Amino acid sequence: MTSPVNPPPRLLMGPGPINADPRVLRAMSAQLVGQYDPWMTDTMTETMGLYRDVFRTTNEQTFVVDGTSRAGIEAALVSLVEPGDRVLVPVFGRFGHLLVEIAERCGAEVHTIEVPWGEVFDPSAVEEAVVATRPKVLAVVQGDTSTTMCQPLEDLGEICRRHDVLLYCDATASLGGNPFETDLWGLDVVTAGLQKCLGGPSGSAPITLSPRAATVIDGRKHVEAGIRSDDDDDEDAAGVRIASNYLDLAQVMDYWGPRRLNHHTEATTMLYGARECARLLVEEGLDAAVERHARHGLAMLEGVRGLGLAVFGDVAHKMHNVVAVEIPAGVDGDAARSALLTDFGIEIGTSFGPLHGKVWRIGTMGHNARKDAVLVTLAALEQVLRAGGVPLTAGGGVGAAQEVYSS
Amino acid sequence: MTSPVNPPPRLLMGPGPINADPRVLRAMSAQLVGQYDPWMTDTMTETMGLYRDVFRTTNEQTFVVDGTSRAGIEAALVSLVEPGDRVLVPVFGRFGHLLVEIAERCGAEVHTIEVPWGEVFDPSAVEEAVVATRPKVLAVVQGDTSTTMCQPLEDLGEICRRHDVLLYCDATASLGGNPFETDLWGLDVVTAGLQKCLGGPSGSAPITLSPRAATVIDGRKHVEAGIRSDDDDDEDAAGVRIASNYLDLAQVMDYWGPRRLNHHTEATTMLYGARECARLLVEEGLDAAVERHARHGLAMLEGVRGLGLAVFGDVAHKMHNVVAVEIPAGVDGDAARSALLTDFGIEIGTSFGPLHGKVWRIGTMGHNARKDAVLVTLAALEQVLRAGGVPLTAGGGVGAAQEVYSS
Repeated sequence: MTSPVNPPPRLLMGPGPINADPRVLRAMSAQLVGQYDPWMTDTMTETMGLYRDVFRTTNEQTFVVDGTSRAGIEAALVSLVEPGDRVLVPVFGRFGHLLVEIAERCGAEVHTIEVPWGEVFDPSAVEEAVVATRPKVLAVVQGDTSTTMCQPLEDLGEICRRHDVLLYCDATASLGGNPFETDLWGLDVVTAGLQKCLGGPSGSAPITLSPRAATVIDGRKHVEAGIRSDDDDDEDAAGVRIASNYLDLAQVMDYWGPRRLNHHTEATTMLYGARECARLLVEEGLDAAVERHARHGLAMLEGVRGLGLAVFGDVAHKMHNVVAVEIPAGVDGDAARSALLTDFGIEIGTSFGPLHGKVWRIGTMGHNARKDAVLVTLAALEQVLRAGGVPLTAGGGVGAAQEVYSS
Repeated sequence: MTSPVNPPPRLLMGPGPINADPRVLRAMSAQLVGQYDPWMTDTMTETMGLYRDVFRTTNEQTFVVDGTSRAGIEAALVSLVEPGDRVLVPVFGRFGHLLVEIAERCGAEVHTIEVPWGEVFDPSAVEEAVVATRPKVLAVVQGDTSTTMCQPLEDLGEICRRHDVLLYCDATASLGGNPFETDLWGLDVVTAGLQKCLGGPSGSAPITLSPRAATVIDGRKHVEAGIRSDDDDDEDAAGVRIASNYLDLAQVMDYWGPRRLNHHTEATTMLYGARECARLLVEEGLDAAVERHARHGLAMLEGVRGLGLAVFGDVAHKMHNVVAVEIPAGVDGDAARSALLTDFGIEIGTSFGPLHGKVWRIGTMGHNARKDAVLVTLAALEQVLRAGGVPLTAGGGVGAAQEVYSS
């Protein structure tokens, strides 16, 4: 026999998912309503407006994809990219590689530029690559949790406009906790998820599309499968039909738009959750939420340094909401994580690829970007490391964080 | 300013979604736990076992896809079907057309057979088409809510084994409310959703894969994008890489399996919901749940007949959980639905395609396959139709349903 779901108490201080804000879970316990009930369509329209505020955009085409943040990424790429299109991906961590993999599956000719993990790109390097590869789409992650780095985007929109390139940004890990400006920065498509700085569970992917991106995608919906509808030499001809039905943003736009054409059955409970995540951010104010993530992220950063631990990567370009902490020599990183989880109920993150076994990743995001969450994590980490024989200044972590809070 | 989510009270008696069982919504309000927390991986493993019971299978590869039922359909087809593969779809309603559309987008050469809406196929007609078209995959809907028909599947597995065809079934609308036997019927892949007879919200797609289906799909994961890994003449050569990352079941199997390879971030809240839906069914007993749907479905059927209304289609092959009611001459079907919703808080369904404007669809499924839901719907429908001038026997609907309940 199975029992009712009864998760153990956990403070989730990894790179996400984090504990959902209780308000989001309460919103998700509301009863369902039919898909075309006037209340439901009003709620969908209201959610579109809330996410325009979150993304800082006036884009009409702003809604949620029913799936995790990865579904949002794939919806963007499969809808924008036709087989044979060139896509440029500046890779500075694991999620850049994911963009490459997904674009390849869409049939793109993918070009990459790379920097070592722990660094970001200078915009001029991106422009050089744009000039060299002439892509249809530049696809870039803003914040890559695998390295904690946050790629500056301010100049990329202008570069893309100059070279007639569509700019897609995966803001899953960064949105809500770091400055973000869809319209001001000239981003064409942005996708996100709820499980990072938005304070909700994974399973809904907010997305926004500029008018020119929407036009490109909408132009693909009248095409027969795999058949160009016009002379191949005519560059304005409609292209190849979008390979996915579920993630076909041309159809999904018609579903969210005034025509309300039937598509999938709305994941209503996730919609309630996505709506409440946006309400929390809009109520707090986007600038205030970013400032909160900056403050608690700095407290965590100074706290781990106060414990005598080193921080990985170019800290000047670190996301506010996650820090990569070098595992001290002689410490078994997984055993320490396990002790934190088992004895203190606190989860911190492991790492991937070149950083595996070398750093822990500690997050301060969404509902958990709070003073008490930062201080108990530092206090518990101190105890676990001291028990493992690491010589630490007692209280050095909490003390350094407190200094940030009192400054 | 927006308000906390506060849906109006609705009794959802359409073809789905229906009101979620309160136990499912309570389960979904549980707090999140990290993706690789031992409690979480145990919960995932337990959910796999629960869905083996629901699907009546011993298939190791039984889990949920993070998306709506449509995501499950696309995951099945994009993972099974390579460009150029032949797929046969017996179409007896709208969701058959959806299978065609999705298979086409996967690059399949799709063949169809069709019967008029309101009928199902004789297995011999399916076998004839299998022989004529030699498909790799036979893709069939069990219950198509657009027509209310339930395609008998008992003989299709044997036909597919005889002709070495993979058999995929979309059981979204039928599972839990109609007899279903994955292993006994020889089904290779089955997908479902929560929002029909399972009593949950849309957003999670249970799926099961037979060992031979899993082998076919797993064989595609070592292939470079778009490139056959071996001589094209070698029919055993690994084929074309799966076009989707998000819905790549080869990767999703590795994520749910003992290797627990990282893929998407689990939609934990939807997982809690999916698990509770399965627990409800397993506690009640699958046979008892089907019997409950049969009983309340019959009460609704006899009730609408007792009101003097005609029922559409081959009632001998109707799903238990939905009935298509012919709109009486002179009645504005949408106005009547609107009155039911506005004045009585009850939603019934409209119709698509050839049935648009001709029938209403009334569901009795999941949490709403209950006597009180049936009787209040019949009582309210009587009032709305009498107010619209339709001559009805007062109490004829409720009376006929009561006779079913007392028999």
